[in-house]
Amino acid sequence: MLYVPDLLQAIDMLGTFVFALSGAVAGVRRGLDLFGVLVVGFVAAVFGGITRDILIGAVPPDAFLHPHYMILAAGAGLLTFRWYPLVARFTYPVRLFDAVGLALFAVTGTEKALHHGLDGLSSAFLGIVTAIGGGVVRDILLAEVPVVLRSDIYAVAALAGALVVVAGDQLALPEAPVALLGAALCFTLRMLALYRGWQLPSSRWYAKGGP
Amino acid sequence: MLYVPDLLQAIDMLGTFVFALSGAVAGVRRGLDLFGVLVVGFVAAVFGGITRDILIGAVPPDAFLHPHYMILAAGAGLLTFRWYPLVARFTYPVRLFDAVGLALFAVTGTEKALHHGLDGLSSAFLGIVTAIGGGVVRDILLAEVPVVLRSDIYAVAALAGALVVVAGDQLALPEAPVALLGAALCFTLRMLALYRGWQLPSSRWYAKGGP
Amino acid sequence: MLYVPDLLQAIDMLGTFVFALSGAVAGVRRGLDLFGVLVVGFVAAVFGGITRDILIGAVPPDAFLHPHYMILAAGAGLLTFRWYPLVARFTYPVRLFDAVGLALFAVTGTEKALHHGLDGLSSAFLGIVTAIGGGVVRDILLAEVPVVLRSDIYAVAALAGALVVVAGDQLALPEAPVALLGAALCFTLRMLALYRGWQLPSSRWYAKGGP
Repeated sequence: MLYVPDLLQAIDMLGTFVFALSGAVAGVRRGLDLFGVLVVGFVAAVFGGITRDILIGAVPPDAFLHPHYMILAAGAGLLTFRWYPLVARFTYPVRLFDAVGLALFAVTGTEKALHHGLDGLSSAFLGIVTAIGGGVVRDILLAEVPVVLRSDIYAVAALAGALVVVAGDQLALPEAPVALLGAALCFTLRMLALYRGWQLPSSRWYAKGGP
Repeated sequence: MLYVPDLLQAIDMLGTFVFALSGAVAGVRRGLDLFGVLVVGFVAAVFGGITRDILIGAVPPDAFLHPHYMILAAGAGLLTFRWYPLVARFTYPVRLFDAVGLALFAVTGTEKALHHGLDGLSSAFLGIVTAIGGGVVRDILLAEVPVVLRSDIYAVAALAGALVVVAGDQLALPEAPVALLGAALCFTLRMLALYRGWQLPSSRWYAKGGP
Repeated sequence: MLYVPDLLQAIDMLGTFVFALSGAVAGVRRGLDLFGVLVVGFVAAVFGGITRDILIGAVPPDAFLHPHYMILAAGAGLLTFRWYPLVARFTYPVRLFDAVGLALFAVTGTEKALHHGLDGLSSAFLGIVTAIGGGVVRDILLAEVPVVLRSDIYAVAALAGALVVVAGDQLALPEAPVALLGAALCFTLRMLALYRGWQLPSSRWYAKGGP
């Protein structure tokens, strides 16, 4: 695990907060009540990490051992519920922070799995689960096909960051700089994808096979 | 954990049964086949407790160690499948029992988490998960936005009951009367909400931000 | 657990592969991008086994300890993404293999639960979860009511196979022939259901109670 005393801990908390914002915004848009907005915000922020912890047997998950996750997510939910237009106006910085959160969660998720003795392939997979799991369940709760499965270079950026960590682990490189490199790669890919409109392809058979 | 030899055990079984009825009724309404109706009834009855048990590391979950949960849920499913109009006519007592189940599951879920060493905030959260988790997954299986996220004082009643248990634990009060007090508060809030039509607010930005 | 050195291991891999095909085909039909198709294929192939492993406390789940599951699922996803019409043309053999996978997963899932000390009822239930869990979550990801809850003799065939294993366990019969008998019964029921169009009934109250 990344020992992240100051700067990285701050980024982790920022990532939790902006992921919760993304969930709460989606909840307000669908007309959920206050409790629903808080739940979807919380789920978006921590479900990826909870899933990773269940899969590697680290229960109770981090999100239940450290109350600041719940408090941050609740704060983001309340803020969005009350001042939705303000939050919506900050779409640009939110996307920036979202990319930061994605990068950090992918890297720390991969490292935590490696530290629990999983092999590289599974660890990279769990890194992606950590980074995108919250968004997937946010969309399931809203009865939508998860957006991460439909469009955009998002999970692939997380995969790139995770693979850097796995490679560094197998080459026995020092952990902290490798983690920063992985996070930087994930962040850069994600921002480039946003600004250039990069998409993964859909199957070219979709038009014929579609519903 | 609440040691519940007679009366409370009976209520626990009643709660399981009526939660299973709620799932089976929803399944019949959506045209599921017999197996589907049984599954949705079972999920509605026990998924909250299973989720709590997975999160605190108490596996296999209770629902797999004590066969009466499965038998009760299957009985409720068969009953609903065969005599749906009869079950539907009992909507009033079902809502009453549902409130009883909600109250009991919120209290026992919170206590079980406290006994596994989680802090008060997380334990209250797991109490709510125990009480509402089954209904959430019931609705996900039917491809709907969970009703508990959209309307009604339901989770908030569970939260109130859970907080009483947490407060009692931190003041080191005797467990059984605190549990009864928490359950009574949850039950009363839920019934008042039903009869007065209390709702949590949706965000006032919903109309503008809605789809 | 079934010790399955050669033939049965090959069937297990075949089952994983065809379950992944079913997920990937559904993903292409819904217009997911490459990542989405791979995820839905992977989930369809291994989510049932992962759920079983979480419920019995065998974490990390098998699917993360043996990389061939991920590689097989990724292969099936890529194949479907690129040559969808070819895969779709093989619907008949895919259904055959799917029935083989169903039979094998039901039997091995039940055995694994029995070996972890669960009683017969819960073990049979976990056998069904192993066999159908992947398909259920595949459909949830696509925001659809799971097909296994709506139609067809599918889960019932898995139940029949699981019950044979449980009965053999309680009579202390030798494991391997009982497993083959259970798998054969499940497979036969499933193929008969396909060719004769057997369905489980919906509740006869559906027309009146329907939405």
